[in-house]
Amino acid sequence: MSIQPVLIAGRWRAANASGTFRAENPATGEALPEEFPVSTWADGDDALNAALAAANLLRAMPPEKIATFLTRFAERIEARKNEIAETAHAETALPKTPRLADVELPRTTGQLRQAAAAVREGSWALPTIDPKLNIRSVLGPLGPVLIFGPNNFPLAYNGVAGGDFAAALAAGNPVIAKAHPCHPNTSRLLAEEALAAVRETGLPAASVQLIYHLAPADGLRFVADKRLGAVGFTGSRGAGLQLKAAADAVGKPFYAELSSLNPVVILPGALAERGAKIAEEFAGSCLLASGQFCTSPGLAILLAGDAAEEFIAGVKTKLESTAPGILLSAGVARNLAESVKALQAAGAELVTGGVPLAGNKFANTLLRVSGKQFLASPEQLQTEAFGNASLVVVARDEAEMEKILQQLDGNLTGGIYSDTNGTDDERYEKFAPLLRSRVGRLLNDKMPTGVAVTSAMNHGGPFPATGHPGFTAVGMPASLRRFAMLQCFDNVRPHRLPAALQNKNPNGKMWRLIDGQWSQNDVAA
Amino acid sequence: MSIQPVLIAGRWRAANASGTFRAENPATGEALPEEFPVSTWADGDDALNAALAAANLLRAMPPEKIATFLTRFAERIEARKNEIAETAHAETALPKTPRLADVELPRTTGQLRQAAAAVREGSWALPTIDPKLNIRSVLGPLGPVLIFGPNNFPLAYNGVAGGDFAAALAAGNPVIAKAHPCHPNTSRLLAEEALAAVRETGLPAASVQLIYHLAPADGLRFVADKRLGAVGFTGSRGAGLQLKAAADAVGKPFYAELSSLNPVVILPGALAERGAKIAEEFAGSCLLASGQFCTSPGLAILLAGDAAEEFIAGVKTKLESTAPGILLSAGVARNLAESVKALQAAGAELVTGGVPLAGNKFANTLLRVSGKQFLASPEQLQTEAFGNASLVVVARDEAEMEKILQQLDGNLTGGIYSDTNGTDDERYEKFAPLLRSRVGRLLNDKMPTGVAVTSAMNHGGPFPATGHPGFTAVGMPASLRRFAMLQCFDNVRPHRLPAALQNKNPNGKMWRLIDGQWSQNDVAA
Repeated sequence: MSIQPVLIAGRWRAANASGTFRAENPATGEALPEEFPVSTWADGDDALNAALAAANLLRAMPPEKIATFLTRFAERIEARKNEIAETAHAETALPKTPRLADVELPRTTGQLRQAAAAVREGSWALPTIDPKLNIRSVLGPLGPVLIFGPNNFPLAYNGVAGGDFAAALAAGNPVIAKAHPCHPNTSRLLAEEALAAVRETGLPAASVQLIYHLAPADGLRFVADKRLGAVGFTGSRGAGLQLKAAADAVGKPFYAELSSLNPVVILPGALAERGAKIAEEFAGSCLLASGQFCTSPGLAILLAGDAAEEFIAGVKTKLESTAPGILLSAGVARNLAESVKALQAAGAELVTGGVPLAGNKFANTLLRVSGKQFLASPEQLQTEAFGNASLVVVARDEAEMEKILQQLDGNLTGGIYSDTNGTDDERYEKFAPLLRSRVGRLLNDKMPTGVAVTSAMNHGGPFPATGHPGFTAVGMPASLRRFAMLQCFDNVRPHRLPAALQNKNPNGKMWRLIDGQWSQNDVAA
Repeated sequence: MSIQPVLIAGRWRAANASGTFRAENPATGEALPEEFPVSTWADGDDALNAALAAANLLRAMPPEKIATFLTRFAERIEARKNEIAETAHAETALPKTPRLADVELPRTTGQLRQAAAAVREGSWALPTIDPKLNIRSVLGPLGPVLIFGPNNFPLAYNGVAGGDFAAALAAGNPVIAKAHPCHPNTSRLLAEEALAAVRETGLPAASVQLIYHLAPADGLRFVADKRLGAVGFTGSRGAGLQLKAAADAVGKPFYAELSSLNPVVILPGALAERGAKIAEEFAGSCLLASGQFCTSPGLAILLAGDAAEEFIAGVKTKLESTAPGILLSAGVARNLAESVKALQAAGAELVTGGVPLAGNKFANTLLRVSGKQFLASPEQLQTEAFGNASLVVVARDEAEMEKILQQLDGNLTGGIYSDTNGTDDERYEKFAPLLRSRVGRLLNDKMPTGVAVTSAMNHGGPFPATGHPGFTAVGMPASLRRFAMLQCFDNVRPHRLPAALQNKNPNGKMWRLIDGQWSQNDVAA
């Protein structure tokens, strides 16, 4: 059968391929029919040239045009919802409903629309004006952005439609998407709609490009290429760190989401007050999408005692009474088994599960380890077990809990449950600052798996959760600022300034920092 | 004689030294009397432990306290102005007046006061509130910051008093300063005043620490240490890139200012209209502080013709009629001679100068090269010659000029001179976007050497000018945001929120993004 084409320079054309691959249906283990190319460097080179030309055109386009594209793309995705959800289901085994069609797809189109709104309004770019000195600055496009999408959100994080895509495009940059090889066909459908929306709305043809697969060496070459402005990467820590090193060496912004355990500290007052309920919540959060969320709680930290034992028993019961889900791929199942073994090798004991099952499944798994043991091997015991497995650390006392928190790596999130009567307040005061410094989002009395798309969200955190603790991958308008460079205009003649920096507020709504005060007014001439 | 102590954990104490060094008076070539230690890792380790403890205390302090420290520090520097300027003069040969006492010192104290104002007001941290979901985020401290100051601004960029120091401290982080070994005694005096201000205002004792020198291997270890939050580095590209790689490997934000040629494009209309005046401006800008500014114009790009020849002749005359200044150190003089040789080896011809002179001086130097030659060796011909040397590229025609601009590396600044009658407008439209994408600050009709400390300044730019194109090292409040992590609070109980995120606006003046709109109001309960 014929090999699927790649999308380069505005048209679908045969790849310069070094080989082909097919995705697998995780539910059946069978290869899916469509055959996709592994591109050689020639495709990357073509895509970069086309993207660079598109970047120069995009820079000069009015924001309204980009916003219209984003909106139109969202509408087109919605119109093809059924086919997209079915295709993604076949490639990921995620439920077609509600997950794909009713949750992830609306999230995806919602993100595109929020990005469109941010572009139209314009405040995201923090326009800053010193009228007296006539020095003005604003965040502006930085060039083509290469986006590697992850395996676990075939729509909402897809390189050709997800959050990074929306943010990079909204910031005025063309996107080159590297599809995740687990769901190439879903990526293809999304790219078809993106291209159609590009044509309908008059964006440069190469504003959106798609390739499916690359040899690792070509990936490294790609992220370090002079024509590229920045990279968005969501995926495994191993691959991510190699790409990051290549990008870092040439000072290329590399926004990576690499791994996170999302520790949840449950204080004794909370355990006493509502331990059973929290055990239920924790287990539920662990099993969401079979634990294949970046914010899945992979670590709980408790103080030793009867209540802790009851909590562990409660989680165990819930895990054992829930049918394990199908994992995203054979690779995920294999890595999960290996990670659970690594945790055991480092001293963790199985409470339940730990066994690979037929059909790309893994028994719902809970492990436990003493605080003492954790402190003896903090690095190994923070191995991420991506999937339906979590580790409970039982600290002997508060002093040990403090030490455990000090050993935590950077994470996307960290949560603390405390009681409602103030018994835990002193402990909270002691532990919260330790956790705060290690996580991007601190939660109270809430599991981390819900990531609302709101301006105040931070889906980011200290290394190794991401590559830079100052940025978020979710939430407009902040996520746009990753894909921008600060552009200052010093003594530039008024008519040559970008609209956002001219004396007249271009849309009457844009917030600009004028003489140190945020304002929607014009600059007094 | 006795070895100067280091400032660690709030007291001046003997260093754990592997050796000692003395700075040199660049005007005489003689070693200055004070002997300074090269610290071993034991000092670094102690400083990191003390800084980490201080970081935890600083996090909990009211902004007012940090602001008071910054202001008090500025006052104390002013009170010791004479001694500080004299010491800096002895170590750098920069004129005591006006440069050190009347320009750089006021700039330094001005930066500290602007940082204090930014802390008091609080908007720098972009507090963002979604009241309905009770998700709130704000930029917060990220931990101890190590600052490497450069050789060329002993006060305004000093690790213990300069712009990076002010920004890092204002963002709530303790600072460990690594003095530049060319001006250790100046750094010592500033650190004395910093410590006194720390004590007067009740900041944690280790909020400011100072070491003078480190073995390169210890520097690499330092920037990668888990206790460290971020690094500020201003200095040479070679040393900076090694440190950057070590920091990048562990995801540590590394804000580097590495090198910049600051290209100036002078369009033919401008040359015809006021070539002699621009030649005068260009030469003046090149010779400011003997060209030892990060924004010194090291590259001019012209179109071939009589006017270009007249411009070159005009610059030559001015350079030859001005006495060369003393360079900052024997090392600077040596590097400058080597860089000029490297430019010649790559095809540049000497117009004037090119000769080392006695007493740490170098003849004011101008080189020229054809556009064709530049395009044959664009990398070598963008060698930074830090000091009083610049290169003129003479392009055959506009097409060649375009290619030259496409070959430019990232720079802090780039300027375009055009005429006032519109003759150059079409060329400006063609060339400005190319330059814009390669520089942090685009100037019109103005030389780049003035860097105003204003909210709209960008002292930053694409690699290799800096390590990330989204940040500025000069200008409050944006420069504070480099030394911060994004901290989100999800469902956190109201009384546990930082003041900036509580419903009540803490000072009535702080701008917060509430439901997508900037506001100084309280959040409606």
